[in-house]
Amino acid sequence: MSPIFPKCGNSHKVFFLMRLDELASIVDAELVGDGATEIHAVATLERAKEGELSFLGNPKYAKQLETTHASAVIVATKVAADHKPLLKSKDPYLSLCKAIVALHGYRKHPFKGVHPQAYVDPTATVGEGTVIYPGAFVGPGAKVGKDCVIYASAAIYDGCVVGDRVIIHANTTIGADGFGYASSGGVHHKIPQIGNVVVEDDVEIGAGTTIARGALESTVIGKGTKIDGQVMIGHGVKVGPGCVLVAQVGIAGSTTLGKYVTMAGQVGVAGHLDIGDMVTVGAQSGIMFDVEPNQTIVGSPAMPAQQARRVYSWFTKLPEIAERLKALEEQMSELAESGDTPLA
Amino acid sequence: MSPIFPKCGNSHKVFFLMRLDELASIVDAELVGDGATEIHAVATLERAKEGELSFLGNPKYAKQLETTHASAVIVATKVAADHKPLLKSKDPYLSLCKAIVALHGYRKHPFKGVHPQAYVDPTATVGEGTVIYPGAFVGPGAKVGKDCVIYASAAIYDGCVVGDRVIIHANTTIGADGFGYASSGGVHHKIPQIGNVVVEDDVEIGAGTTIARGALESTVIGKGTKIDGQVMIGHGVKVGPGCVLVAQVGIAGSTTLGKYVTMAGQVGVAGHLDIGDMVTVGAQSGIMFDVEPNQTIVGSPAMPAQQARRVYSWFTKLPEIAERLKALEEQMSELAESGDTPLA
Amino acid sequence: MSPIFPKCGNSHKVFFLMRLDELASIVDAELVGDGATEIHAVATLERAKEGELSFLGNPKYAKQLETTHASAVIVATKVAADHKPLLKSKDPYLSLCKAIVALHGYRKHPFKGVHPQAYVDPTATVGEGTVIYPGAFVGPGAKVGKDCVIYASAAIYDGCVVGDRVIIHANTTIGADGFGYASSGGVHHKIPQIGNVVVEDDVEIGAGTTIARGALESTVIGKGTKIDGQVMIGHGVKVGPGCVLVAQVGIAGSTTLGKYVTMAGQVGVAGHLDIGDMVTVGAQSGIMFDVEPNQTIVGSPAMPAQQARRVYSWFTKLPEIAERLKALEEQMSELAESGDTPLA
Repeated sequence: MSPIFPKCGNSHKVFFLMRLDELASIVDAELVGDGATEIHAVATLERAKEGELSFLGNPKYAKQLETTHASAVIVATKVAADHKPLLKSKDPYLSLCKAIVALHGYRKHPFKGVHPQAYVDPTATVGEGTVIYPGAFVGPGAKVGKDCVIYASAAIYDGCVVGDRVIIHANTTIGADGFGYASSGGVHHKIPQIGNVVVEDDVEIGAGTTIARGALESTVIGKGTKIDGQVMIGHGVKVGPGCVLVAQVGIAGSTTLGKYVTMAGQVGVAGHLDIGDMVTVGAQSGIMFDVEPNQTIVGSPAMPAQQARRVYSWFTKLPEIAERLKALEEQMSELAESGDTPLA
Repeated sequence: MSPIFPKCGNSHKVFFLMRLDELASIVDAELVGDGATEIHAVATLERAKEGELSFLGNPKYAKQLETTHASAVIVATKVAADHKPLLKSKDPYLSLCKAIVALHGYRKHPFKGVHPQAYVDPTATVGEGTVIYPGAFVGPGAKVGKDCVIYASAAIYDGCVVGDRVIIHANTTIGADGFGYASSGGVHHKIPQIGNVVVEDDVEIGAGTTIARGALESTVIGKGTKIDGQVMIGHGVKVGPGCVLVAQVGIAGSTTLGKYVTMAGQVGVAGHLDIGDMVTVGAQSGIMFDVEPNQTIVGSPAMPAQQARRVYSWFTKLPEIAERLKALEEQMSELAESGDTPLA
Repeated sequence: MSPIFPKCGNSHKVFFLMRLDELASIVDAELVGDGATEIHAVATLERAKEGELSFLGNPKYAKQLETTHASAVIVATKVAADHKPLLKSKDPYLSLCKAIVALHGYRKHPFKGVHPQAYVDPTATVGEGTVIYPGAFVGPGAKVGKDCVIYASAAIYDGCVVGDRVIIHANTTIGADGFGYASSGGVHHKIPQIGNVVVEDDVEIGAGTTIARGALESTVIGKGTKIDGQVMIGHGVKVGPGCVLVAQVGIAGSTTLGKYVTMAGQVGVAGHLDIGDMVTVGAQSGIMFDVEPNQTIVGSPAMPAQQARRVYSWFTKLPEIAERLKALEEQMSELAESGDTPLA
């Protein structure tokens, strides 16, 4: 295993050369084929070249196994192919992840610690191994844990607490004031937002996202939760551990998400709601009521997925419903006019 | 009234110790109970401890009055409780606001004026008492008024005008070019956006929001209007005074909002529309037509709230409508087949 | 043609004085009236003063031709007006664009090259004529072409490639990690995102937008495409040339857009889809399936525009449908009860 060459797209990274049998062990897969095959990178089936490892995730692309130039392919245990070395895995996506980590690794940062073009307040604390990019801001009394990465122009307001191994991408804001006013006599009086944001360990937050600080308490992002870019989390929201919030989701103030809640893109959630553990929400849904654990809900307004499938199916056929209704009305009217029924 | 101790979450702030009778006068409430009770902070009913003041906003939480450890509670005039000092207020939310201001105050900034890691163009002007955070940008010819706060990495483009006491949160952009192109021969020719943005006095704009400059005129945000994070305001939009725009709202170019318009989260408004004074819009609504003043509208497409309530109620019951329609058709068909009606 | 005076709103710009016949030639229009008329600026019909050129885009505002104080007006070829010099154009919007460019020009930047408060990694390359604003970030190995403008706090991650004449507005992020995890045993394992973003020539990207880097390949923004603010583009998305994506659009990972695709505001597109050339999508639509070229689609879920018009028309009349259905059921029930039909 030795570094070979930098590569466009990630020119600061060092790549490695590994034997396929070595990789099989690292990615926890069964080797089928020549273990001496040398691999130096991971690529898609379509673009992979010799020396590269690829990945078959979806059975409908199985034909690409025959045409790919990859030197080996990670597949699910049941997949067979006789002309190509395979790494058969019970969890092929996890094996892919491990292979990329082994061959490419995570981003190597161009400096260590706090970059001089960042601002870290003298009263803030930053843990060992944490990298803070130029333009980032860490306010008074804020605490950032160990081995975090705070990318360019990310802003962490005063008093916010960020755990260990947290990644915050560029232009994301943690702890801006919540949207709280007491409106009286035509004036919206600003309520000081004296809470903060607590981001627990192993959270990743995408670029351009906003997480508001609590009015009186903490806004909390639970351990291991992953939040995409352009998301908005209102003040006092509690997001449980292990949640996945896709891009452009918006969650209004004081709502609570249980653990392992998944929300697809552009979902909106009203304030002061309880969303149970393991709930899954379809894209663009609008949630206005509490949701029991383990539900899959879809639609605006959000409904159980099974109901939503039927509702939206009929929705797109509304003109047909209107026509059938009109036809019935005409038939009924003819009956009435015919004079031989009690409707006449 | 004396400073006591810094507190986690806002460690740079100084807190005060006040008597309850003193507070009653400050928050304009009637004191019921021991006026000598000492208060040093505000907290939720659930989390308040001795020495803290809490707040009952929603009657359904009235039971928490019996269990809270708060030393006193702000309540509406009609609420009674005999085992706890109360501050009875005609406008309890405003009283809460005043109590937080009195006991905690607004954010104390860690520096004064323009931070050296900000960029303020030599041709820009910045009023007295204004604080500009690291990473913020104020372009050529821009004017920022007195007592404003421009947070980290907020960007105010050239020629924009910001009034007094305006707050702009981190990573928000004021005056980026509007989205204007003349498309011809397969090329989208950029139209120079020679207007600007005018943000009037007492406006607050959340984090990660974008307000585009006008093509020929000004985009205007009226006095006292409050805009949440992740909002998009297109070029040439005029937002009246006292409006409230919640997170992720998007308003397309040249639309005009009257005064005191309220839009809930994720609302979208098409361009070149007039939205009247005092209009209220429900979350995720899509507005495609002018709206008369004083309306409450909901839905995508937006409808009067009363209509929307009925439409969405039937929407979720579409499968039932389809079944009832099918049953009627079968009955009608039987009638027709029976031969004793003119439909046969 | 000589510089005259700076003007509020764009005080760093120099303006010019031109004769109307000179302008007619520049904007490719037919002059009707006095060619010696002097023009120094462009303004709306409503606000234009003497010495200013205006523009009639929409015939319904034709009456403003009689009241405007503009010294001349750009109009479509067929428009007539006898009391005002006109510039008659076959493409009046393009003529307007040219007139603004001639009289006002594009933004003059207050400095050249890379501002010292920006961060450009020593391994990144920046082309001639490119301006990089304070707070901007260009990561290791990134390439920015010639004559680009990278505004304040825009972040271009490592290894990303930006073509020539590209404009990236403030607080926009190019190349943050895609949202990719291998979830196993309750842990979301981060998949290194080893692709990059390629932004082709002549692209403009609004403020506060996020474009994620590909997992294994490049996320691509095609030549001449224009993207508004607050947009989210997922990892591995390929946007063709000449596309127009309005504010708050979100496109999930691995989806492909053909050329000249237009999406209105707040549209959401699911992942792994193919959207054909020349497709147009209405505001707030939700796309869950592939779309054939040249379609106009609308709605959530998205439908062909013609169908959507009928569906949404009936949607808002759902209470009427329910009432008509109920009336029919009652009539049918009366028939059945009357005993003279086979339903009895």
